[in-house]
Amino acid sequence: MSEKREEAVVANKKVVLKHYITGFPKESDMEVLTTGTVRLKVAEGSPAVLVKNLYLSCDPYMRKRMSKHEEPSFVSDFTPGEVLTGFGVAKVVDSNHPNFKEGDYVWGPTGWEEYSLITSPENLFKIKYTDVPPSYYTGLLGMPGFTAYIGFFEICKPKKGEYVFISAASGAVGQLVGQYAKLMGCYVVGSAGSDEKVSLLKNKFGFDDAFNYKQETDLNAALKRRFPDGIDIYFENVGGAMLDAVLLNMRIHGRIAACGMISQYNLEKPEGVHNLMFVVSKRIRIEGFIVFDHYHKYSEFVEFTVPRVKDGRITYVEDVVEGLENAPAALVGLFYGLNVGKQLVAVAHE
Amino acid sequence: MSEKREEAVVANKKVVLKHYITGFPKESDMEVLTTGTVRLKVAEGSPAVLVKNLYLSCDPYMRKRMSKHEEPSFVSDFTPGEVLTGFGVAKVVDSNHPNFKEGDYVWGPTGWEEYSLITSPENLFKIKYTDVPPSYYTGLLGMPGFTAYIGFFEICKPKKGEYVFISAASGAVGQLVGQYAKLMGCYVVGSAGSDEKVSLLKNKFGFDDAFNYKQETDLNAALKRRFPDGIDIYFENVGGAMLDAVLLNMRIHGRIAACGMISQYNLEKPEGVHNLMFVVSKRIRIEGFIVFDHYHKYSEFVEFTVPRVKDGRITYVEDVVEGLENAPAALVGLFYGLNVGKQLVAVAHE
Repeated sequence: MSEKREEAVVANKKVVLKHYITGFPKESDMEVLTTGTVRLKVAEGSPAVLVKNLYLSCDPYMRKRMSKHEEPSFVSDFTPGEVLTGFGVAKVVDSNHPNFKEGDYVWGPTGWEEYSLITSPENLFKIKYTDVPPSYYTGLLGMPGFTAYIGFFEICKPKKGEYVFISAASGAVGQLVGQYAKLMGCYVVGSAGSDEKVSLLKNKFGFDDAFNYKQETDLNAALKRRFPDGIDIYFENVGGAMLDAVLLNMRIHGRIAACGMISQYNLEKPEGVHNLMFVVSKRIRIEGFIVFDHYHKYSEFVEFTVPRVKDGRITYVEDVVEGLENAPAALVGLFYGLNVGKQLVAVAHE
Repeated sequence: MSEKREEAVVANKKVVLKHYITGFPKESDMEVLTTGTVRLKVAEGSPAVLVKNLYLSCDPYMRKRMSKHEEPSFVSDFTPGEVLTGFGVAKVVDSNHPNFKEGDYVWGPTGWEEYSLITSPENLFKIKYTDVPPSYYTGLLGMPGFTAYIGFFEICKPKKGEYVFISAASGAVGQLVGQYAKLMGCYVVGSAGSDEKVSLLKNKFGFDDAFNYKQETDLNAALKRRFPDGIDIYFENVGGAMLDAVLLNMRIHGRIAACGMISQYNLEKPEGVHNLMFVVSKRIRIEGFIVFDHYHKYSEFVEFTVPRVKDGRITYVEDVVEGLENAPAALVGLFYGLNVGKQLVAVAHE
């Protein structure tokens, strides 16, 4: 093969998983390596895309990938010694793929490193609206925001005036679910793990009410006070004891969109949920979903959401850490609720 | 008021609840009273219907009504000292209601007694096909059979070739679900609590396989052996540990119709279900339903089912006890799995 193209080779810092884990992840389970390099050109004949990573998304589902699983799941396990992968926002440096050219902004699966060679560029989305902050494509306009849209509108099938409860409500997904629900004319309550987050829910995102679950000794009573007539829609992000309390308070024909169960991800044995009998007597629908199944609706979501972001009807809070060095701590912090709003890592701003 | 009508007053044996219960019901929680009488005419001006009860249905949901509940459910609690109520097949003795006349066969809510005055006859169904055994309207063509039809076709939305698992599969509902699933071209496995029942499932109802859950030390392994490729549809009648094992074995986009959870009805604190995280990763839909919400489909169900009963494609096994004296034991036996097939009480045969 002839090799006529320029071969700029630069350093490429990256975050690798050191070993498979059990229990809560620790910073020391990951390592930031500065020894790697990358060639800034895609090999001739390859349909790959080389990108410069700008913003990386810290998402709860990544915890699952840090353990070894016997049975395959919807995401593969990470490989110890290799770079972490996840969703991110990036700028195209070089491309042989007809859909992408140098300078394009994209979001999708990428590596936790400065530059990534994307060998399946069909999984990347080209960013259409660049007059909103590009970091929004890790959250509000990326996978979490799209998850909120699909989970709320497609799975919950809300009606005006319904009673909506959202757990982990100030997180990447929850804050947007609550704002969609308010736009639909629902009554919306959220739970979160600090008074600062509760204040955000009430004062910034327009929730009707919110509470700090860590300060409630009786979650059932906490919900009953806020929903004397019960809950029509529960947007489930946490699982465990909160789900049990919600089941006691659901209304007949209530719907539970099971988006995640972050309270359970680090437990050796998940908590038991005892109140499933109410699923029968109240004719509840619990439905799990993963946004990957709904990619054909992405542009519908963007066209719905972007105008409402631009005119201020939808707002979004991000928790940004600077630099790959701080990425492991940011990811670990998710499982302790240290983030306020969408957690992301700025690798570079341009 | 003038009273010109004949007033035949006859003895009216009945079963009453003695007191609210906790835990497993016992025969001694009920009492058969022979002291009552009934006037065999409906009072003038009343739209009620007086019926002679022929067959009474013993159903698991009745356990719930034997305890006192703070919050109202879809069925009311029984009242101690008063006659039990439930579904039954009866013959009209007298009626002022335009839809019913003397001699009609009906099924619907009635009392556990020889004669009942039905004050809400709009809840009765007039029996159209009398060339099948009338007792079938407690089971195959009554509430349990209709439950099987709605749960399987409306909630599970089966497709040809799918893998179907049914718990309590030889019971009033399960035996019919399995036969519907076979008619749809599904692969069908059932669990039951005795070898006799397992034999019925395989040899009489045409299940592809069946197992005695009491002889399995590892339900997960028992399911894996029968469903190496996983379960698309689970028809849930038992809850608890079986549900947990099923969640491990569900396929992506699997559906669970939550019809009942009989293993939990007598527990002070229901068992915990630990594997709900699979609802998210496998995008499972768990949907509770109650057949009362689907009454408008009853004649569709009957027209679908009766021809298949008449030509032998659907069969049905009943466990009949004779006489109201034996009704308490029959009801209690349900919770110990003593019944083989649909449990009912023959109060009278004509």
